[in-house]
Amino acid sequence: MKPTIKIISTLILFASLTASASDETSDDKPAATSPDNSHGIAYPSGWQNWSTIAVSHRTDNNTIRTILGNDIAVKAARAGKTNPWPDGAILGKVVWKDTELKDWKAATAPGKFVHAEFMFKDSKKYADTYNWGWARWVGLEQKPFQKGMQICTSCHTPVKNRDWVFTDPALLPHVSY
Amino acid sequence: MKPTIKIISTLILFASLTASASDETSDDKPAATSPDNSHGIAYPSGWQNWSTIAVSHRTDNNTIRTILGNDIAVKAARAGKTNPWPDGAILGKVVWKDTELKDWKAATAPGKFVHAEFMFKDSKKYADTYNWGWARWVGLEQKPFQKGMQICTSCHTPVKNRDWVFTDPALLPHVSY
Repeated sequence: MKPTIKIISTLILFASLTASASDETSDDKPAATSPDNSHGIAYPSGWQNWSTIAVSHRTDNNTIRTILGNDIAVKAARAGKTNPWPDGAILGKVVWKDTELKDWKAATAPGKFVHAEFMFKDSKKYADTYNWGWARWVGLEQKPFQKGMQICTSCHTPVKNRDWVFTDPALLPHVSY
Repeated sequence: MKPTIKIISTLILFASLTASASDETSDDKPAATSPDNSHGIAYPSGWQNWSTIAVSHRTDNNTIRTILGNDIAVKAARAGKTNPWPDGAILGKVVWKDTELKDWKAATAPGKFVHAEFMFKDSKKYADTYNWGWARWVGLEQKPFQKGMQICTSCHTPVKNRDWVFTDPALLPHVSY
């Protein structure tokens, strides 16, 4: 084998090994593709890194939650401009079953991951569903919920005068960022 | 006035108006300066925008919490590399008194803001306090806590074999970011 051909072969082998390694999925790495749409709404990639708007604990179904927002939502929440929320805001509610914190028995902590559900504010696109798009992805596999937005809106009807949102943004100190 | 001088005057006026506007402090804006150090540790500016590691609810003192982390801590939490946590990790626990969610009585939500407390991992700088710096800022005014790190470490002693950390990172779906 000529030296030039040998170098090229080595490069091709190295490239294919690298490609193979980067295609692998492990527990430490995100999957290569997003979950399918829920109610026709695309998956809001990156929500795991969004900032906090509030937290809550429900004793009627033993779940503990954090309520996150995209940049538009967080800015609106911290400025108190939430009735109505601005177009472009996305609110995410991340839900876990309760568990007892092993080393502090009087503390409830996140156990099994239940689902992540989202409200997408767009007063034109979602005019027929109270100006919000409603979506949910279930389980760690993030299977899209497809049972209809009315499942979401019927539960949220008690807060129709609060732009359909239960959450009050939690108080946070205003200090230099 | 010559045209050139007029243009320069207009620019100076515009610049001073802009500067004046950006100097203003309102409820929507962070304060201009950081709070004083706690136990000699500088305030971790920007924690309000950190990502979530877990949440918890304590029924012994009726508080609800979110546990946030800086980038190093969040990366370690999501990779399961938390015993020990890496140097540079900062964990923040944000604590509110319980309140009942107005429109869903079985839900506990954040009421009065209590404090934000932090653990700063640095195995050299804080070798004398189990490799962590311990700090707390109290109330919305973020008054630095100065009663001594031993107040923090004595409470955390039950988890000394877990690198002094109570929190288990909450399960989150691994999907594309």
